[in-house]
Amino acid sequence: MEFKKKGGKIAGCLCAYTPVEILEAAGMASIGLCGTSQETIPDAERVLPKTICPLIKSTYGFALTKKCPYTYFSDIIIGETTCDGKKKMYELLGEIKDVHILHLPQGKDVPYAKKMWYEECVRMKEALEEKFGITITDEALRNAVKKRNYARKLMCELYAMQKAEPPMMKGIDMMLSIQKETFAMSVDDYIADMEKLIADAKKAYLEEGERPVSADAKRILLTGCPSGGLIEKVVMTIESLGGVVVCRNDCSGERSQSFLIDENAENILEAISDRYLKIDCSVMTPNTGRYEDTLNMIEKYKVDGVIDIVLTGCHTFNIETHTMSKVMKENDIPYMKLETDYALADKGQIDTRIGAFIEML
Amino acid sequence: MEFKKKGGKIAGCLCAYTPVEILEAAGMASIGLCGTSQETIPDAERVLPKTICPLIKSTYGFALTKKCPYTYFSDIIIGETTCDGKKKMYELLGEIKDVHILHLPQGKDVPYAKKMWYEECVRMKEALEEKFGITITDEALRNAVKKRNYARKLMCELYAMQKAEPPMMKGIDMMLSIQKETFAMSVDDYIADMEKLIADAKKAYLEEGERPVSADAKRILLTGCPSGGLIEKVVMTIESLGGVVVCRNDCSGERSQSFLIDENAENILEAISDRYLKIDCSVMTPNTGRYEDTLNMIEKYKVDGVIDIVLTGCHTFNIETHTMSKVMKENDIPYMKLETDYALADKGQIDTRIGAFIEML
Repeated sequence: MEFKKKGGKIAGCLCAYTPVEILEAAGMASIGLCGTSQETIPDAERVLPKTICPLIKSTYGFALTKKCPYTYFSDIIIGETTCDGKKKMYELLGEIKDVHILHLPQGKDVPYAKKMWYEECVRMKEALEEKFGITITDEALRNAVKKRNYARKLMCELYAMQKAEPPMMKGIDMMLSIQKETFAMSVDDYIADMEKLIADAKKAYLEEGERPVSADAKRILLTGCPSGGLIEKVVMTIESLGGVVVCRNDCSGERSQSFLIDENAENILEAISDRYLKIDCSVMTPNTGRYEDTLNMIEKYKVDGVIDIVLTGCHTFNIETHTMSKVMKENDIPYMKLETDYALADKGQIDTRIGAFIEML
Repeated sequence: MEFKKKGGKIAGCLCAYTPVEILEAAGMASIGLCGTSQETIPDAERVLPKTICPLIKSTYGFALTKKCPYTYFSDIIIGETTCDGKKKMYELLGEIKDVHILHLPQGKDVPYAKKMWYEECVRMKEALEEKFGITITDEALRNAVKKRNYARKLMCELYAMQKAEPPMMKGIDMMLSIQKETFAMSVDDYIADMEKLIADAKKAYLEEGERPVSADAKRILLTGCPSGGLIEKVVMTIESLGGVVVCRNDCSGERSQSFLIDENAENILEAISDRYLKIDCSVMTPNTGRYEDTLNMIEKYKVDGVIDIVLTGCHTFNIETHTMSKVMKENDIPYMKLETDYALADKGQIDTRIGAFIEML
């Protein structure tokens, strides 16, 4: 409210493919609007099918019910044609809010993917310039890139703390901190919070000898769908039953954060667009990089077992579980697929399965 | 078998967006492989999630079990990145069969959609040339276009017969005839069969006074997902309970068939690619054309009620039902959404709902 009163502009974002540097160069706050709560799903289901994923329903529900101030105060929402559910939900969201759609290529390997995605970044920049009567300069883009690069390095530093044995933080604390920062009203705030979080955790662990995680906790890698809506239901269960989430291979995980942008590129907008196309997501075909990365992270983080999360209704990650489970089996890595939503109906079953999985490790 | 023994080549097709003229210009038979049977679904579900649509599972199941001779004998399968389920299923199908993937734009209205899709048609042509060591000439493309244009005009003539009151054919007979023709080994065979079908039906109705459909049958428009796997389960039920399917607004319906290709275009491959991008499908965003077309067809075919078919797991058509039902309500058209699959578990419920809908008309 304060921010808006002072004339601040908010762009709602829903995907790691959204080039936030363009928004930030436009002087806007880029805020994550991905729904992580069951609360608005019954309302959303009056419009959307019950069978689509809880993240999509929750997100739309917050817009429909006006229960999320960030959605309500968004001056524009940036959607993207990642999965079918989101792509079509945005058509209905567009009846409530101003939505700009980024069209992603269907695969990274087609010869024109890079050029097409650059065109999309140009279209987004021009749409913002027209809507808000502004000019987004190369200088502003370059400054935004520098800040985001630094913020991403911090995020990688944060993730890397979990390589320690035992890890420096509980997974749940790290995930809640990261989630809170998707609502930071500026990259400067985000950076300050991250620096403090890292400094505090390192001081406690390295200087004060604190060990928030038991040395015999089983080290879990999470992959698959975004797990922001499952922090209590899944991550807390893992960590209360003898496990610890040491890393994630998903859209806000280490790998995505590790891609930086060439700050000195002649065409800075092109450098931005190139960065985003590196992200691995199951909406791309093929998406073999995800399997390789998971193996790499298992080694780096000394992972004991992999939990592959499928939000109910997510076809792309669900189909990829077939190959992921095969790759894990070939490499003798304990693996569990967990298909669930934000509701509590299956909580007992999930607890039992997670408990059994960790016990088996 | 006979066809293959003589050196004939088969291309398996799975979508109305597949530019069959390119395959036919390559001297190949283009055969529809969309699965319409429950039979292979339990096998497919050993690999694919249960939650994806029966068409995708059935198609994959036929390849996995080698139960479909057309799939088995396909020299190449042309997949396309329409929906999430198909896009990701093709990755697994590619482990069994040689699959070429056409990348569709996510919407027709983006400025580069036409150019991108043309590039995809060029890529497909070049892939065929390389794989089979052939050259696809412009002359061959132009000849293929002429034949397909004629075949499409016949299909439109066939559909138009249902404008008669009562319609000239039962919907089920027409749909079964059309489905049979997706297996025609040449466009010439297809044309000969269609000509005979139309001539016979017209003679019976116009000269011999036969009336296969009762004059008081309620006139139904089918729209939504492909209904080839629901001919017995849904169409036969409609027609045994006092209704008749007079038209379809789906991917093999009248509207798709009505788009012809400019036979004299300077760049014939570009003319082919332009034609296919006109097709309305829920995988495109936005896809408002479908609502307008449905209203047009309701008027032309004097439709009493609309049944919107959603194959279980199809997110794109499912989400579009929200707008479709709204448009129908605004225009006072009786409307029913029917979400179902190929299994018989819900047969009783479907029969009751269809019966009640027709009675209400």
